[in-house]
Amino acid sequence: MAELKGFLMPRSPEGRASIVPEPPWHYSGDVLTIEYRTDPANVAALLPEGVEPADEDAGAVAIIWADWQSCSDSGEELLDPVRSQYKECFVVVRCKHGDDHYSRCVYIWVDKDFALARGWYQGYPKKLGSMWMTRPVAVGKAGPRLARGGRFGATLQANDRRLAEVTLTLTGPSDTGGFVNALPMLHSRWMPAIDPAAPDALAELVTMRSQDLELGPAWTGEPTVHLFDAPGEELASLEPKELIAGYWRQVGATFAGGTTVE
Amino acid sequence: MAELKGFLMPRSPEGRASIVPEPPWHYSGDVLTIEYRTDPANVAALLPEGVEPADEDAGAVAIIWADWQSCSDSGEELLDPVRSQYKECFVVVRCKHGDDHYSRCVYIWVDKDFALARGWYQGYPKKLGSMWMTRPVAVGKAGPRLARGGRFGATLQANDRRLAEVTLTLTGPSDTGGFVNALPMLHSRWMPAIDPAAPDALAELVTMRSQDLELGPAWTGEPTVHLFDAPGEELASLEPKELIAGYWRQVGATFAGGTTVE
Amino acid sequence: MAELKGFLMPRSPEGRASIVPEPPWHYSGDVLTIEYRTDPANVAALLPEGVEPADEDAGAVAIIWADWQSCSDSGEELLDPVRSQYKECFVVVRCKHGDDHYSRCVYIWVDKDFALARGWYQGYPKKLGSMWMTRPVAVGKAGPRLARGGRFGATLQANDRRLAEVTLTLTGPSDTGGFVNALPMLHSRWMPAIDPAAPDALAELVTMRSQDLELGPAWTGEPTVHLFDAPGEELASLEPKELIAGYWRQVGATFAGGTTVE
Amino acid sequence: MAELKGFLMPRSPEGRASIVPEPPWHYSGDVLTIEYRTDPANVAALLPEGVEPADEDAGAVAIIWADWQSCSDSGEELLDPVRSQYKECFVVVRCKHGDDHYSRCVYIWVDKDFALARGWYQGYPKKLGSMWMTRPVAVGKAGPRLARGGRFGATLQANDRRLAEVTLTLTGPSDTGGFVNALPMLHSRWMPAIDPAAPDALAELVTMRSQDLELGPAWTGEPTVHLFDAPGEELASLEPKELIAGYWRQVGATFAGGTTVE
Repeated sequence: MAELKGFLMPRSPEGRASIVPEPPWHYSGDVLTIEYRTDPANVAALLPEGVEPADEDAGAVAIIWADWQSCSDSGEELLDPVRSQYKECFVVVRCKHGDDHYSRCVYIWVDKDFALARGWYQGYPKKLGSMWMTRPVAVGKAGPRLARGGRFGATLQANDRRLAEVTLTLTGPSDTGGFVNALPMLHSRWMPAIDPAAPDALAELVTMRSQDLELGPAWTGEPTVHLFDAPGEELASLEPKELIAGYWRQVGATFAGGTTVE
Repeated sequence: MAELKGFLMPRSPEGRASIVPEPPWHYSGDVLTIEYRTDPANVAALLPEGVEPADEDAGAVAIIWADWQSCSDSGEELLDPVRSQYKECFVVVRCKHGDDHYSRCVYIWVDKDFALARGWYQGYPKKLGSMWMTRPVAVGKAGPRLARGGRFGATLQANDRRLAEVTLTLTGPSDTGGFVNALPMLHSRWMPAIDPAAPDALAELVTMRSQDLELGPAWTGEPTVHLFDAPGEELASLEPKELIAGYWRQVGATFAGGTTVE
Repeated sequence: MAELKGFLMPRSPEGRASIVPEPPWHYSGDVLTIEYRTDPANVAALLPEGVEPADEDAGAVAIIWADWQSCSDSGEELLDPVRSQYKECFVVVRCKHGDDHYSRCVYIWVDKDFALARGWYQGYPKKLGSMWMTRPVAVGKAGPRLARGGRFGATLQANDRRLAEVTLTLTGPSDTGGFVNALPMLHSRWMPAIDPAAPDALAELVTMRSQDLELGPAWTGEPTVHLFDAPGEELASLEPKELIAGYWRQVGATFAGGTTVE
Repeated sequence: MAELKGFLMPRSPEGRASIVPEPPWHYSGDVLTIEYRTDPANVAALLPEGVEPADEDAGAVAIIWADWQSCSDSGEELLDPVRSQYKECFVVVRCKHGDDHYSRCVYIWVDKDFALARGWYQGYPKKLGSMWMTRPVAVGKAGPRLARGGRFGATLQANDRRLAEVTLTLTGPSDTGGFVNALPMLHSRWMPAIDPAAPDALAELVTMRSQDLELGPAWTGEPTVHLFDAPGEELASLEPKELIAGYWRQVGATFAGGTTVE
């Protein structure tokens, strides 16, 4: 009997049916980042046992929108863009494990199944949502330029409720795209046992970082942030106490796997 | 530090953010089943190592559409039906492990994230799709009655391509809703290691069966089935060689967990 | 040169491309109606010149959710249900023109293009939205029964914001499905001139009523209503001051055209 | 009684509820155009009475994908991009009326209601669909560059069936973005009478052209085109007999109204 093939489910005779092909996965897209501070206790409450708050600025949060085009090594998805484009909104905090500091994604929404599945594999706790972000334009009157005074908005909806809306007004070029999402990621991969009363069947702490990072020019500006409560969500508990800054840049990166920490 | 709560990801301070609450999960819905025979080699090619074809009628396939309303034990989702209703299309075959025969879901598409996540937990290899099925009606001219001659259609789309369409013309009441999906399920739960070169981090064979099954009257009839090929799919390789029958019935059931087989 | 065919746009050589075939259009579905009173001035403010408030109970409003299956006379859409099923939420008030009283739809959202186009033709001012309504069930634990104590919810979202949510708790059978949407409709069909500075190219008052009405048993109960404000919407200005009642019933009807009033 | 306000339906007390605000409407976006020749009889069959085929190259067709950001004069939609971004696929032919040549849109699909309503006003015969087009990227491995050899794909789906897919491989810069969609538009605005047996209530021939056109650099290349038949569509009858070329460019434009031709 031939072996089943395929990176993720469903595994199949030819391996073509998997919800996503095997890594490496390549990404090119627009990234809008808003950084702010919440009560550090709100961040600490989101860290699993054995993971501690960051030594400094432990209440820093990044809420990030990205509009991605992505593909596997074959690149075949690029000519069938329903299978390569997706949008996401995600929330990142920093934390410490042993002597090392990490970034950690605590909430994330995407709008395609292949992106959701990649997240479950990587420990990004993805759910489905509807995300929109203003695009900079080079011609016409229907959009901001990447220039001082350019204004951008971004919104998140899930289960038919708006969960977040932000704006960013550009003030000038930037050397950085932010610091909260700049460390290697420290993620948990959990899968409960099929007997709900038994301990988790999978409970790992993993780390990963992007490869072949290629960054466009960064812009910074002044943000606004509004988070809204909803059943089935706890995003609003990360309420902003102090805004730091916002950033817009294009990002290219490759994911080729990670490492188990424990 | 307080422990993170929540059945699946994301785990959070209050446990409300999980993509789905813990089982039991209750289901009530309409189920349209078409059964047919394909070349038994096509079914055998979908079974993982250690799982064998059924002793009899090893090429039997069920392709099933369901329009569900579902909820957790609290039932709170029922008043916010965007979080309780979903549709699915799935393909089931039979198989044998040790001395026991099982049903096994080999392909499945759903249209909500909570349903997709429950499937990944249960070993249903769910992807997203768009499913539609004719509803029987009791008044007016815009639908079939549950009666001899009533005609139903059902369709499946994923990644902007139609993958399947079936019809069912009712011939009369039935004692059964089909035999292919009637056994306990035998599913694989796979999660690759975060290092893609390493062996799977989770690779289990699990079994489960519905509890508190409550069945409405069943109808049977004559089916048609058309499957269409698409990139990223292998459904069309299960081509019908002989149609068996189709069924329509309402089903109520509860999932409360399963058992690890190996 | 052959004439173009088709009821609505696009008109084409064979007439198959029209967004919807010509009437009659048949409907079968579930209808959840909540009736309440707002300040009569809110209703009066929604009536066009020449149309007056109803003589009695002029502040009465019905907000209605419907889950329809619909088809043209050929019925061919019923086997391809992506083209026959849709959901809608609409708001109806009563009004008076000359000596006659009418119902009038002031806001409405649907989730399919064929339904939107039929509305533009009929003077229903349709926009797109996402609607969900609890379904009664006959088996299982995942839904209310059509019986005293059965609880139903319904929600409306448009442009990624929740606009309305209601609940209905059944108290018993009913002789009626409500009075606000029970009169012939009085609708405006407006199309601005292609020169925006010129008067409307089409400005008609039309009336229509359903034919071949077939009604299932009606249930009544106690409602709750919450409306939410949003950019691009004025629904929330119809705020409830007094709840009247709610209703659930199945409805079958046919639309075969209307009459120009002026 | 105050007058109802609003450009299109629904008209309301404040005029905020209209599915789209009044013109001018501004557009900035990416446009992918494929031009080819079909049998001129296929084009002639799509022209209304009184409109004739173009004098030269009467079988030329453009199938165009656009990814737009758009707004009204206030620009407020730009910070709530769910209300400003949309995608479309449309088919344009050329024709002659009196002594003048025009472009004419014969089929078009969009993915937002405000875009659909603008089209019905302008005589673009819009239906809903799902459109995707490869984006050029400046960083990373997940997309083509705007450079010789860059490969782009675009697809169209409606009613859960794929209707069209094209590719474009760039060969170099271009002085033009194509000739088929380059003339003033000649559109029909039709609205049947509310009595289906009566003549159209609105039947106009209108013309319009973009203002404040701002064009980015154009690229040309070699195309492929595949059209697929479907119930409710006649797009596939415009089958390509000879491919001309493809183009990609950014376009900014404003629509501020048109003129009635007859």
